[in-house]
Amino acid sequence: MERTCAIDTANKIGQEVTISGWVDGRRDHGKLIFLDIRDMTGIVQAVVNPRVSAGAHKAAEELRNEFVVEAKGRVNRRPENLINPKMATGTVEIEITDLEILARAEPLPFELDTNLNIDTYLDNQPLTLRSRKNQAIFRLQAAIAQSFRDYLKGMKFTEFQAPKIVAQAAEGGAEVFRIKYFDHNAYLAQSPQLYKQIMVGVFERVFTVTSVYRAEPHSTTRHLNEYVSLDMEMGFIKDHTDVMKVLNGWMAYLIEQLQKNNAADVKLLEIKLPAVPKEIPSLKLKDAQEILEKECGAKNAIGQSDLDPEHERLICKYAQEKLNSEFIFITHYPTKKRPFYTYPDEQDPETTKSFDLLFRGVEITTGGQRINDYNQLLANIDKWGYKRENFSFYLEAFKYGMPPEGGCATGLERLTQKLVGVDNVKLATLFPRDMNRIDLSLGKLKL
Amino acid sequence: MERTCAIDTANKIGQEVTISGWVDGRRDHGKLIFLDIRDMTGIVQAVVNPRVSAGAHKAAEELRNEFVVEAKGRVNRRPENLINPKMATGTVEIEITDLEILARAEPLPFELDTNLNIDTYLDNQPLTLRSRKNQAIFRLQAAIAQSFRDYLKGMKFTEFQAPKIVAQAAEGGAEVFRIKYFDHNAYLAQSPQLYKQIMVGVFERVFTVTSVYRAEPHSTTRHLNEYVSLDMEMGFIKDHTDVMKVLNGWMAYLIEQLQKNNAADVKLLEIKLPAVPKEIPSLKLKDAQEILEKECGAKNAIGQSDLDPEHERLICKYAQEKLNSEFIFITHYPTKKRPFYTYPDEQDPETTKSFDLLFRGVEITTGGQRINDYNQLLANIDKWGYKRENFSFYLEAFKYGMPPEGGCATGLERLTQKLVGVDNVKLATLFPRDMNRIDLSLGKLKL
Repeated sequence: MERTCAIDTANKIGQEVTISGWVDGRRDHGKLIFLDIRDMTGIVQAVVNPRVSAGAHKAAEELRNEFVVEAKGRVNRRPENLINPKMATGTVEIEITDLEILARAEPLPFELDTNLNIDTYLDNQPLTLRSRKNQAIFRLQAAIAQSFRDYLKGMKFTEFQAPKIVAQAAEGGAEVFRIKYFDHNAYLAQSPQLYKQIMVGVFERVFTVTSVYRAEPHSTTRHLNEYVSLDMEMGFIKDHTDVMKVLNGWMAYLIEQLQKNNAADVKLLEIKLPAVPKEIPSLKLKDAQEILEKECGAKNAIGQSDLDPEHERLICKYAQEKLNSEFIFITHYPTKKRPFYTYPDEQDPETTKSFDLLFRGVEITTGGQRINDYNQLLANIDKWGYKRENFSFYLEAFKYGMPPEGGCATGLERLTQKLVGVDNVKLATLFPRDMNRIDLSLGKLKL
Repeated sequence: MERTCAIDTANKIGQEVTISGWVDGRRDHGKLIFLDIRDMTGIVQAVVNPRVSAGAHKAAEELRNEFVVEAKGRVNRRPENLINPKMATGTVEIEITDLEILARAEPLPFELDTNLNIDTYLDNQPLTLRSRKNQAIFRLQAAIAQSFRDYLKGMKFTEFQAPKIVAQAAEGGAEVFRIKYFDHNAYLAQSPQLYKQIMVGVFERVFTVTSVYRAEPHSTTRHLNEYVSLDMEMGFIKDHTDVMKVLNGWMAYLIEQLQKNNAADVKLLEIKLPAVPKEIPSLKLKDAQEILEKECGAKNAIGQSDLDPEHERLICKYAQEKLNSEFIFITHYPTKKRPFYTYPDEQDPETTKSFDLLFRGVEITTGGQRINDYNQLLANIDKWGYKRENFSFYLEAFKYGMPPEGGCATGLERLTQKLVGVDNVKLATLFPRDMNRIDLSLGKLKL
């Protein structure tokens, strides 16, 4: 008999079905054994009655959580007083006639869906990811990536695949991972930046969902050494504000899609989805710093080249309270603190046509207009003290005609974290890598 | 004035428009200068008449291919005898009134769309990728990745992000790239295999589009050291044939989508899209080897543990001629030549419930059923001579209940190569890495 998914049993009252899944709960009421059976669509309750099937009852006596079973039975409507309105299948119950154990599970070391110490959670991800909460978080993460692709595709962007092995640290920094590449050294890409700019010459508008690497020796609630970057880049822009508009549009589309397609996960996680303003408010860094000191009680903001984490938190609070927005753009970061390809503001060349998008206290996106003039790029490479020959591949895109262009990069895990409201980015990351951990603690592994 | 895309000019006869793009061709007919202007949607012809605009004509005199321009003008219908039926905008021509140069281009070192020596092509990808042929190849590549995601999403698969930094070579082989990871060694993932199996425990059906790494010291028309793997894995299967059915279904969907959405690229590249049989023919390795020797004139096939490249070519030829299919499954590879997690065939435990999918002479996919029983996995890890503790993270997924499951992995670049019909996989790879090249020849770089 063909398999019926848990969620579909609610529409099959009176029918015989076969369901498969994991035991998500088992309650032994003397004679009757009640099972919650979980599959990719949800959970359904089943009851094993020895008078209906002695064999099934015997098998059910052995079950523990996470055993994998296939069960045949009849879908019954529950009596009115036993209907569970919180459950999508709360109106039905399967009366099991056959029960087969497909795989056994050892006794769980802890209950799923309990609050675990983060190291215990991470050490046991193959098990802990199965909790309803974690399933919901990573289903939402998949929805974020999909919305990014769908929205941009609707705007004629073309997807491309960015390489992760690069010949050198593109932007000069020391915080790169080194690879032994045959007889050479190579590095893990810090970003697909140079490749996406090259691809503007090919397709004009491009995006990629790609892993990026930072060898930062920190293990905090904000840091990941490997993360997923949602990168886009577009040609024929007026300036950085055209990129901000596309990003703003994607955020609105994302929230709309989550409301439409992920309502159950949003409810389960008790997420308050943000309203996305038609035009997200925007402040120049300098103005934000003044507000921070004058209105938010911050110190050491004015004159700095960036916002520190506390400033990010405070300016988001300000945006929410005074500008009625959980999102805020900060623009015009100083030229000397941005990469060599960042477009300087003609009105104030010490600052750039760059922006960060902040959401719920942290930067989730960074972007801006890029220098598209070949000679200006050459001059900046000299000025930054880099070697032109190290950028010769990249520079070819500009030597042969590059329109005014810009783009941005959004951290998938950070955006997930802030949307779902967990307090450590590692809780929004499948298999996070940090300086002490690759799946398991590096100290414990014998490598 | 808002920008009009090239393709849309055909519907704006009589209107004033602004178009932006690259000069894709320039023909100076004495007084009149004709320009082909290329943007992300296609190409449109424009004419610059000094009697219409002396300024525009002066600017047009300076233009060369790949200059970037913005032009204002009027869309005119071409006289009947000048209509170009091969061009989507072949019925119109823009009479330019204003012409602004947005970026200059140096004289091209060669014509785009000429056949270049592969090293010249690769050394100059920021330029050579702009040719119509290469645009079409990589638009089709994007369509392949999208069809994979869309098809599986329609079958309740959930996307996940696989890490690329791993603590050890998962499958034992020596051909891995080593990373200096803080005070430890780490490696680049050869595949997301162990993670996708873990994720079956979470979502039952999962997929990922991910980069994978092979440190094979070969530089051939078949090898890539970094490539994109389209990976899927599903629980509650009967055996490997359930995975083959999903793969078969995706192939049919892919070809249907390409016919529907990418007709222009298919035409430009003169691709003959394959028919996908409702059930792709399947041969056990042993039977395929007999056919190879008895019917195809192959040598050294029988008794080998795999097909060599020549065998793959011959068995595909056989499938096309005798079985009327450009695709063929080869199943039941020997146990000793497949990874430790491969499910042995109960009828013949020296062989496995594994398969490869071959298409137009090469293997594009490999897959199979996996061992889902915890104790059987432990026994195999011992038998293969690995250390159990090195797999403890992975094993936790099986310790706590894993259904019968399987999956497969398709190489994006190889599938692209065979679909578009280029003779080197590097011609179907954006920025290919091989032992001698990371963008540019490693011998030439000073690293």
